[in-house]
Amino acid sequence: MLDNSTIVAIATPPGMGAIAVIRVSGSEAITLTNGVFRPVKTGKSLLESKPYTLHYGEIVDLERVIDEVLVSVFHAPHSYTGENAVEISCHGSVVIQQQILELLIRRGARLAQPGEFTLRAFLNGKMDLSQAEAVADLIASTSEAERRVAMQQMRGGFSDKLKLLREQLLKFTALIELELDFSEEDVEFADRKQLEALVCSIHEEVSRLADSFSMGNAIKQGIPVTIAGKPNVGKSTLLNRLLNEEKAIVSEIAGTTRDAIEDTIQLAGMNFRFIDTAGLRHTTDEVESLGIARTHSKIEQAKVVLYLIDAAESISDGLTEIEKFHQKLTNQQTLMVLLNKADKAEAQHTEQLARNIESLLHCKTLIISAKSGQNINELTQNLVNIGVSAQPDGNNVVVTNARHYESLVNARESLENVLSGLKSNLTGDLLAVDIHQALYHLGSITGEITNDEVLGYIFSKFCIGK
Amino acid sequence: MLDNSTIVAIATPPGMGAIAVIRVSGSEAITLTNGVFRPVKTGKSLLESKPYTLHYGEIVDLERVIDEVLVSVFHAPHSYTGENAVEISCHGSVVIQQQILELLIRRGARLAQPGEFTLRAFLNGKMDLSQAEAVADLIASTSEAERRVAMQQMRGGFSDKLKLLREQLLKFTALIELELDFSEEDVEFADRKQLEALVCSIHEEVSRLADSFSMGNAIKQGIPVTIAGKPNVGKSTLLNRLLNEEKAIVSEIAGTTRDAIEDTIQLAGMNFRFIDTAGLRHTTDEVESLGIARTHSKIEQAKVVLYLIDAAESISDGLTEIEKFHQKLTNQQTLMVLLNKADKAEAQHTEQLARNIESLLHCKTLIISAKSGQNINELTQNLVNIGVSAQPDGNNVVVTNARHYESLVNARESLENVLSGLKSNLTGDLLAVDIHQALYHLGSITGEITNDEVLGYIFSKFCIGK
Repeated sequence: MLDNSTIVAIATPPGMGAIAVIRVSGSEAITLTNGVFRPVKTGKSLLESKPYTLHYGEIVDLERVIDEVLVSVFHAPHSYTGENAVEISCHGSVVIQQQILELLIRRGARLAQPGEFTLRAFLNGKMDLSQAEAVADLIASTSEAERRVAMQQMRGGFSDKLKLLREQLLKFTALIELELDFSEEDVEFADRKQLEALVCSIHEEVSRLADSFSMGNAIKQGIPVTIAGKPNVGKSTLLNRLLNEEKAIVSEIAGTTRDAIEDTIQLAGMNFRFIDTAGLRHTTDEVESLGIARTHSKIEQAKVVLYLIDAAESISDGLTEIEKFHQKLTNQQTLMVLLNKADKAEAQHTEQLARNIESLLHCKTLIISAKSGQNINELTQNLVNIGVSAQPDGNNVVVTNARHYESLVNARESLENVLSGLKSNLTGDLLAVDIHQALYHLGSITGEITNDEVLGYIFSKFCIGK
Repeated sequence: MLDNSTIVAIATPPGMGAIAVIRVSGSEAITLTNGVFRPVKTGKSLLESKPYTLHYGEIVDLERVIDEVLVSVFHAPHSYTGENAVEISCHGSVVIQQQILELLIRRGARLAQPGEFTLRAFLNGKMDLSQAEAVADLIASTSEAERRVAMQQMRGGFSDKLKLLREQLLKFTALIELELDFSEEDVEFADRKQLEALVCSIHEEVSRLADSFSMGNAIKQGIPVTIAGKPNVGKSTLLNRLLNEEKAIVSEIAGTTRDAIEDTIQLAGMNFRFIDTAGLRHTTDEVESLGIARTHSKIEQAKVVLYLIDAAESISDGLTEIEKFHQKLTNQQTLMVLLNKADKAEAQHTEQLARNIESLLHCKTLIISAKSGQNINELTQNLVNIGVSAQPDGNNVVVTNARHYESLVNARESLENVLSGLKSNLTGDLLAVDIHQALYHLGSITGEITNDEVLGYIFSKFCIGK
């Protein structure tokens, strides 16, 4: 997959800006750039340049000066890709960016594929595969929480852990395979007790990582907060209030919302994905029934459920209703009960109800008015607290990548097979098969085991110029 | 206007990209950046760095690592602004860009105003005002022709010429002012003949520059090509064909187009601004009359006029009609006659008509069909040829800036006053007044004479980060 061509791409965001950067990489990167570069003042060729230096000059196409630029020079292996590399910082006109790019291509460079600079960094051993994937996540990050987990992964916290586990397991495989060579003598080089202890601890670690994916995914996609409740309790009004725009249609008619309506906002550096749902009731309306089915699935996916009750309505069976609802949630989910329409309700009655719910369900209960905005700040503050407490601390690695998650789940399964094999005194050659499977899945995360198809898929999702 | 603060801005286009660049300038730029920079591997502080070097490391907010970056260091006066300066090349995530910017501002930098880096370059004598303005034009350039004239201006072709003229004139002013000191002795230090010759040659040069503005403006805004003719000859169909989209409403009803409809396309690196107009005819419709009045003004502004005739109609008076139209154009304008609807017309008759028009008016005449696309390529090729022949050659400076044009026109007027004063033997003190006016106007172009208000206006049109 690694070729010797010199690749080139615009690395800065598309469009006009004060400056733009064009990136060139490959063994000929410096020579090729030097062929279109005329130094100003110094008269120094790029070929004589020291690594990590900047050079002021002109990009020229024969006698035509395209732009005055600053060129950064990097010598292999001390560059991002591990190859010779050049970055040309030019005036950020769209014409100039295009002309420099075209000139370099005419002189023998090739337009880089998406992610090809990072692919080369991986192939040249500058980073492992999970780190390379973290680069794409880092660039795409839109919140502080996302940035933090991507940065942690890019800096190798994840990979180091996996490599260690894998090496320990590899040692045992070697011993087991040695047994196979001496199979007629019935010896055991690999201590089965030690192996079981090791596989157990690896299994525990792999499970922890796999389980962290639900949080990792929430960080990446936004923490899912589902707004649920009976029809016409003000769910859509609350969504609009939280998003500060008229996202969902609001009317007095019960059952106005049918599709689940989503949008993301950022609170305290975390993305929250709010989901307004169809109100829960028995209905004969076919479309509304489909909407309610969707509501149930959105509740299942939620990290936080905001359950709305109309405080203005007399609710003799209110408590039973919430209690039933509460029982359906898992202990990974947080329920908040919101007594809405406080502006219309009788205050004393509402407060009594709130106290009853809190003491019965031990869940946070707030009296709000989505319409007037009352207590909405307290609601968002509570959401932020839930988000913060669910965030990984600095030392805990979180999995955010679906590919990694899948490999971890597969590895866990293989490790479980090893464990049950050990329990039933399976022979070394059969144990080795499952251990190899576990090694394969763990290795595929960091790219120790990979193939062109997987790489092609991963890097195709990168942006050009990275 | 020059303050000592350290300014900071994102210099790359807005949005997400592989990398983004944050620019810092001011005497404290290096110290301030060093306070949030942790070198990786080298352990070298930015304070010990040599100019024009790159440094790999981390941007840290206390213990929190925001990103891994490359920092370029420039020492005053060898930087764009002439001050100490730093460019931080980070991962192009929107969050990262924002966080680094905020961190630097918290540590004492100030968000740069639009164009403030270039303003500082001007105030520190790194470039004159017309060169600074050319930087903005260069960044905004969307065609090769625009890029070329902006580059020429940025490289000082324009300024050098003006400075030379101004210096020669200044010498004479000094002599004339010397005469004033000896006014009672009636001496002439400044040879009136030489002065007249000089003012004449400066006047000629200033006129040439002022006249180049119509071309310069055409390069910047697009060469204006007005499509004119009687109603229903297919003007809007031709516009749509040239633009390759359904820009103008087309119908069988004569007088469909009322507003002048414009759009720009690029042909061979030049922008052409095509203007479809209301058909020329006598009408009692009030809105259409207003449209026709506008047509006349668009014809006046055109560099090229495409005059359409319906080849399918019998046109006994066709020649007189075009001849009349032709007479109204100036010799700065090019007329092309297009015999449209060739697909419907009788070929032999049309060809004869084309020959007649060419021999009568000596202007290019093409037989086309806007509807089927026949001969449209030949039409665009002819437009490109007109554009190319009107382009300035490498040695001729072209004025593209309305402010410069205004100053040149004012300078020309003052020079004419000097010339007529010389003719009527005006005294030295009165001559000096007009010469000073001319000097003032010439000096305002390059910024030798300026004020905060003018500077504020000029730089407010820049983008942030430049």
